[in-house]
Amino acid sequence: MQKEKSRTKSAPKEEPKLCARYHHAVELIGRRWSGAIISVMLGGPQCFSELLGAVPGLSDRLLSERLRELESEGLVRRTVREGPPVRVSYELTPAGEGLKPVVESLGRWAERWVKV
Amino acid sequence: MQKEKSRTKSAPKEEPKLCARYHHAVELIGRRWSGAIISVMLGGPQCFSELLGAVPGLSDRLLSERLRELESEGLVRRTVREGPPVRVSYELTPAGEGLKPVVESLGRWAERWVKV
Repeated sequence: MQKEKSRTKSAPKEEPKLCARYHHAVELIGRRWSGAIISVMLGGPQCFSELLGAVPGLSDRLLSERLRELESEGLVRRTVREGPPVRVSYELTPAGEGLKPVVESLGRWAERWVKV
Repeated sequence: MQKEKSRTKSAPKEEPKLCARYHHAVELIGRRWSGAIISVMLGGPQCFSELLGAVPGLSDRLLSERLRELESEGLVRRTVREGPPVRVSYELTPAGEGLKPVVESLGRWAERWVKV
C-alpha cells in the first residue's frame, strides 16, 4: 500500500494498481523454480515425483516449498485421493492455467534470444 | 549441459533446449526488481534517476546491480553522451524490447488475478 501512495505522485490514477500487481506477478513466477514448475504443470495434474522428475536440478525440499507457496497464492490445488494407496496430486487452478499465454510468450522469447 | 542430458531421457529431442532457455528467461526477468525495471524501460531510454523514481522501493545500489546484470545479459544498453554535463542513459536492446509481449501478457494476467 505504501508503494502505491508514493507512486501516485507522478503517475496517472489507473497505473499504480496494475504496476503493483505486475510487480507481484513477475516476482512470483520468477522465484527460483516456480516458472519451471508452472510450465510443467500446464501439462495436467501430476504427482510429486512426476514433478520432481520433470524439473532437472530441483530438490524435494524446494519442490515442497514452491508447491506450498503456489498453493497459498491460489495458483495450485492439491488433491488427496483416498487409498490405499493414498494419491496426492497437484494441478493448476484457473488462475494458474491463466498463466499459459505468459509461459508461451516467454518461451517464444527465450527460443529467439536466450543462448544455451 | 548436465541438466539437458538428464532431461533427454524422457522428453522429445527438441524440448530440452527450449526448457533450459525458458528456465533461464523466467528466472532472469523474475529476479527481484528486474521485471519492474524492464517494464519501465519499455517506455523508452531513461537516465538512472528517472528509473529510480519510477520503481517505488528500489534502492540506488540494487538498481545499479540490476542494470549491470541486464546489460551483461544483453537486454539493456548503456549510452554515455559526452557533456558537459555528461549524460548516461539506459535503453532496451532489441532483445529487451522483445520482452514487450511477455510483459503485456503478464500485466493482463496480473490485472485479472492478483489482488492488491
